[in-house]
Formats: sequence, structure tokens, C-alpha cells
Amino acid sequence: MSDSPLDIAPDARFGPATLPYGVYSTASDPRTRVGVAYGDHVLDLGSAARAQGAPFADVVDGPNLDALLAAGKPVWDEVRAALTTWLTDPAHADAVRPHLVERAEVTLHLPFTVADYVDFYASEHHATNVGRIFRPDQEPLTPNWKHLPIGYHGRSGTIVASGTDIVRPTGQRKPPTETTPVFGPSVRLDIEAEVGFVVGTPTEMGERVGVDDFADHVFGVFLLNDWSSRDLQAWEYVPLGPFLGKSFATSISPWVVPLSALEAARVEQPAQDPEPLPYLRGSQPWGLDLRLEVRLNGYLVSSPPFSLMYWTAAQQLAHMTVNGASLRTGDVYASGTVSGPEVAQRGCLLELTWSGKEPLRLPDGTERTFLEDGDEVTITATAPGPDGTRVDFGEVTGRILPAR
Amino acid sequence: MSDSPLDIAPDARFGPATLPYGVYSTASDPRTRVGVAYGDHVLDLGSAARAQGAPFADVVDGPNLDALLAAGKPVWDEVRAALTTWLTDPAHADAVRPHLVERAEVTLHLPFTVADYVDFYASEHHATNVGRIFRPDQEPLTPNWKHLPIGYHGRSGTIVASGTDIVRPTGQRKPPTETTPVFGPSVRLDIEAEVGFVVGTPTEMGERVGVDDFADHVFGVFLLNDWSSRDLQAWEYVPLGPFLGKSFATSISPWVVPLSALEAARVEQPAQDPEPLPYLRGSQPWGLDLRLEVRLNGYLVSSPPFSLMYWTAAQQLAHMTVNGASLRTGDVYASGTVSGPEVAQRGCLLELTWSGKEPLRLPDGTERTFLEDGDEVTITATAPGPDGTRVDFGEVTGRILPAR
Repeated sequence: MSDSPLDIAPDARFGPATLPYGVYSTASDPRTRVGVAYGDHVLDLGSAARAQGAPFADVVDGPNLDALLAAGKPVWDEVRAALTTWLTDPAHADAVRPHLVERAEVTLHLPFTVADYVDFYASEHHATNVGRIFRPDQEPLTPNWKHLPIGYHGRSGTIVASGTDIVRPTGQRKPPTETTPVFGPSVRLDIEAEVGFVVGTPTEMGERVGVDDFADHVFGVFLLNDWSSRDLQAWEYVPLGPFLGKSFATSISPWVVPLSALEAARVEQPAQDPEPLPYLRGSQPWGLDLRLEVRLNGYLVSSPPFSLMYWTAAQQLAHMTVNGASLRTGDVYASGTVSGPEVAQRGCLLELTWSGKEPLRLPDGTERTFLEDGDEVTITATAPGPDGTRVDFGEVTGRILPAR
Repeated sequence: MSDSPLDIAPDARFGPATLPYGVYSTASDPRTRVGVAYGDHVLDLGSAARAQGAPFADVVDGPNLDALLAAGKPVWDEVRAALTTWLTDPAHADAVRPHLVERAEVTLHLPFTVADYVDFYASEHHATNVGRIFRPDQEPLTPNWKHLPIGYHGRSGTIVASGTDIVRPTGQRKPPTETTPVFGPSVRLDIEAEVGFVVGTPTEMGERVGVDDFADHVFGVFLLNDWSSRDLQAWEYVPLGPFLGKSFATSISPWVVPLSALEAARVEQPAQDPEPLPYLRGSQPWGLDLRLEVRLNGYLVSSPPFSLMYWTAAQQLAHMTVNGASLRTGDVYASGTVSGPEVAQRGCLLELTWSGKEPLRLPDGTERTFLEDGDEVTITATAPGPDGTRVDFGEVTGRILPAR
């Protein structure tokens, strides 16, 4: 079986510890369908499930992950258990092999229909740096920051799949030297390296989700680049928050890692002082030891540690619903920029270059303050899997096109 | 023909000047379908269009307005012209009558699938009052206010149809007398009387919509109550804007008035000083002379004049897309609270009671600062139609249930 696509090296990308879900098409078959990455291949999950007579075949046989997301945790667990058997038990190899396509041959798409999108602000290091840069005359953290996970709604309609080109946004900015705003392409275009979560199981209006019910509602995890125009944002964001500085595009990685793949990655979150209100306390740790890497034109520029995030995704979900706001299948929420205490752990250029004052020197001899046209940014991540294995998040990438 | 449902009094509600679109069901037929309000009746638009052999029958024959919204302005105009003929030309009366149901017999539903939701802040009187109340030590209008229509994204998933009960939200608030936040039901629950707009014709990412292209993209207009928890909002909103203080519920009126019904209501907006940047200037007036009325438990408490809004909906659309953010069919955006210069023209209780310091005295002898459990709020509006007629917006109403 050594030449079987199922016989993958222990350190191969997308090994049995990950089994992420995505949506793909091929040149010869442009239908979008649900796939599972395994080594250098993608399993056509719908066709495999039908062939195996799996009871869950109907929810994985559509054009995207929507039906699987809505099916709920017992089905999620059942599908993952079946996948693990099919892909790793040699007795199933002959049956599974016809449903594999080469990963290099597939085009990946947005994996599910995005309902609402909320972006949080959960890294103490990031929030402190941004506060120092944007509001140098005030305390860097606002008085509410350690009492609640601050968040705001973003634009769902401009969440795009990895690989989508990003047109430089245009708009108003007010340079400090001017008394009135000027108009033109953004000159401080930035990234934000984040981790995204997608809700599967919905709730009714008036219902709350407790911190300990996180895994019953959240299906999976992916990477997210919250492209940000710092000059548009700085001028517009008081008093109602970011708007056009963020709404032009948000890119997500195409492979959704199920939450159940991250059991070995769960760690204690940083100590919280003051202790949060009871609705934000859980009995289980939901820190997640994801190690992100940010590359600009191929050069590693940052390695943000997700394990240091002050607020967990479980706390964010509890907060988002404490007022009775309902959840829908496909709701996305993101962590906020992931930044650690070290310079080389900062998840955006605003911090990495200290608002442009300390340019990044790239190995090709060029310097960057903010993004230039043609620049390509790629965020990747891994996490520990069981028994020394590795969970792979794939990548979210995008290239900047000139303003129109 | 005097007992015909088509023979309506000149001053009847929903006369030929309005012809609004909605989605209804009846006790005997629970399918949701597209209806047009006419006097005391509702026309089953899908069945009428099929019976008439109308070329647009397919786009009005679904469970909601989505297909009509996506069909574009030429079809919108064609449908309205046909409706006007069918309902007002006696030659069509016999053909139309079988497709009418009594308005009192229908249940109204959310009329379309909401994509993204943006809430603006376009009344100078409202923004000035709120600035004085929330930030008494600063200029009431932030420096950007007269340069751009400030807006932010709200939660699409909690936009509900008029008549839906609203559960009082729970969350964190920090009374001025406390050093740390307390948890519990909101004690400063408010309304915001607003006007909403729904996008029909979408755009691609990177594309902009000019001020003068407003009517090619926006299908119609309705009323919106942006329920607001002032105590949650005040504690959470710095620095990223309102979140849980707004996301628990937003109610909209079920009858969508097509933009083309408002030609006679178009007025010049208030003078803008400073002159806005060129992308915010249009060649046609898009002020709209909508006269709102807000009733609390049946008592008129405010009459906000929409014609005084500083920023028009056409400018808001141009601003929302200037950064290349795409539009989707079903995108909703709202004006922000409509307030005029007089006390009795203020569109929310925060302003009407000056943050609770000047309670409203209701004719039943009770007083209100903010909403009490059981309170019912209803917003209505009319606008001038052609030749002295009237355009009716129906109502958006909701009652407060106790916190859970």
C-alpha cells in the first residue's frame, strides 16, 4: 500500500489529526461540493458517504457546509468518527480510494454561507499597542476592556475565500497636517492576523449560550485576515466604531478545522484580573494553542501565539448572546488581531512598524510600513494534535491590487 | 361598483399612491407569498400576475420579495405600472377581485431575506443631543460628523417583523456610582425611530455606487425601530462602537414602499456646510418628506420630520460603497434616529427625557424615563403622494417582555 494516497507520512500536512472540511470544484467538474483534506488529496465527502451508505450522507452531499453545520454536534462527531475510520483503517482503503482527488487539482471556495460576522478585540497585547498608537494621551486599555470581550459587527457580504485579490480601498482620511479630510486610495493598508469561528447550532432570540456550551454551538475554526485601512479607520471610527476601514474585504482560510480536532490544543487562558462576571466564567479551559505565522511576499514577519489571547472564543460566544441575540447557522466571529508580547509576535503592520515609524526590513532589501500594491500576505497556523501529531490550518492568502 | 374592494375612498390608507409590497399568509393558507396592500385588502401578487399572464410573474410568485428585489429597476417599474392599472382601471376589476384578501385576515412576515445591516447616524439634531448626553465635556458633534455619514454594521439575524415581542436584554452596565460593572436586565431600554432602505441591485467588490445611481440600486423604504439598551451601550461602546446595546432586536415595518412611490416626497436636504467631498454630491435632491409619529402605549410622544436629516440615503449608499464594499440583494441600511429641532420631534427616549432627567408624562397619568415591561411602541409615517394624495408606510410595533 506504499503508493496509496491513504499512506501518508507521519509529518504530512493534513494528516489524520486534522481532517478539515472545505468546499471545492475541479476543472473537469465545476460543481462545488464538500471535501476533506487528507495529505495531498481531497476526499469527496458526499460521494464517499453515499457509497458507504452513511446515515449522514444527506448533510454532506450539498454544494457547501451549510447542512453539516446545521446538523448539530452529534452528527459532527459521527462524521468525524467515520472519516477517521475510512481514511486510516486499511480495510476501507479500496472503498475510499475512488473518492479521492489530488489536492493540487482542486479550486477551493467559501466553505459556507456567512450569516452575521462579529469581530472581537481579545488580545491584550494588541489592544494595548493600538491604544498607545491611536490614543497616546489616554490609558491604552479602555476601562471596559478587562470586564467584557469588546466586539463589533463587520460586513458579512465581503468575506471572501483565500486567494481572492484585494482592491486597495479608497475613501476619506485626515492627515494630521490637514484641517479637512482628503480623498483617495488608502495609504495605510494593513492586515490583521485572526482566528475565526463558525456557529453551527443556532439559538432563538432571548436565549443565552453559556461558556460551557461553546462546543455544542461552534462547529469549527479557521484563519482570518481582517484587511484594515488604518487611515480610513482613524478618521471615521469615533464614536460608532470601524466601518469603511474594515468593510472592503475579509479573507478566510478555506479549510474549516472541526473544534473536536483541537482537544489536544486546549490550554488554560491567561489569568484574568479582575475576575469576570459569572456569565463569562467556564469550568473548562478554552485557550487554544494555535501558532500563527504571517508571511509578507513569502518572508516570515510575525509568529503570533493564539494561546495568549485574554478572552477565549467560549467567553466571546457567551458575551455575544448574553443580551438574548440569537445565533444563526453560519454566524462567524473572529478573535481580533492575535499579538503576543514580543515585536515578532505582533499580528498587524500597525503594531509591527509602530504606526509606520519603524519600517520592516524584508530580506529582499525592501522596506514596508504598510502594504504596497502587489504585496501578498499569507497567514498559516498549526496546533498540537493528540500523541505528538499536528493539526494544520492551511492558509489564508491575498494579494493587493491597485485602487480603481 | 360601490361595494367593490377596489373602490376605495380618496383618503383611505394604502391608496393607489402607495402600493407597498409585503409578505403574508392566512389562517387557511399558511404559505408565505407576496402581497400588495390596497385599501383594506391585500392583492395576492403572484396569483394575480399568473392569471394576467404578466411577464414578471416568476419574480413575484415566491415566498418573499427576494426575487423581485434582485430583478432590477426596469422590472420594478414594470410591476408597479401593471399594479396601478390592475387596481385602478375598472376594466380590470373583475379579473383582479378574485386575488384580493381582507387585510384584517392576513399575517405579515419579514418581507425579504436580510443580507447585511448598516445603521447610520444622520440626524444632526439627534447626534448633537446624544453627544451632549454621552460626552458632556466635549463638542457634541465629532470632527468627522459633517464630512461623512457615520455608520456601523448591526446584527442582521435579529431583524424581526413588526409585532414580534421584544425580550428586555440583560448584560453589563456600569452605573456612575460604581467602580465595576453590575449585571442584570437593562434599566434604560429605549427605541430609535428610523427609516430603513433595502438594496435590490447588487454590486461587485471594488465597484462604487454614485449618489445619482441611488434609485438603480435601492428598491424601497420602510420604518425601523432600532431598540437600544442605553446602559449596555454606554459601558461597551468605546472604542469599537455599539454592540450588545443594539444587537438583541431591530423591528421593521412589513410593507415596503417602493422608492418610485416617493417622487412627490422628494425635497432638498438641509444645506451642508462644509460642502462634502465630490463623491457625496448628487445632482438630484434625495431629501424625503416622511412624517413619522411615535406612539407609546397608544399616546403620541413624538413627530420626527425625516426631511431634516442632514445626510440623505443616496449619500449614505455612496459612502457605504466608496471603499469598494459590495452590495447584496437584501442589504438593509437605516437612517439613524430621526429627530427634529423641537422636543416633540425627538426620535428616542434618551433625547425625549434627556437621559431620564425629564420624564415623559403620559395622558394616563404615568411617567416614563425609559421603557417598562409591557410597554408597546408603534411608529407610523406618511409622505406626500402625487396630486395631493398620501403615501402610507403602515407601522412598526413591538411590546417589551420582561427579561428572562
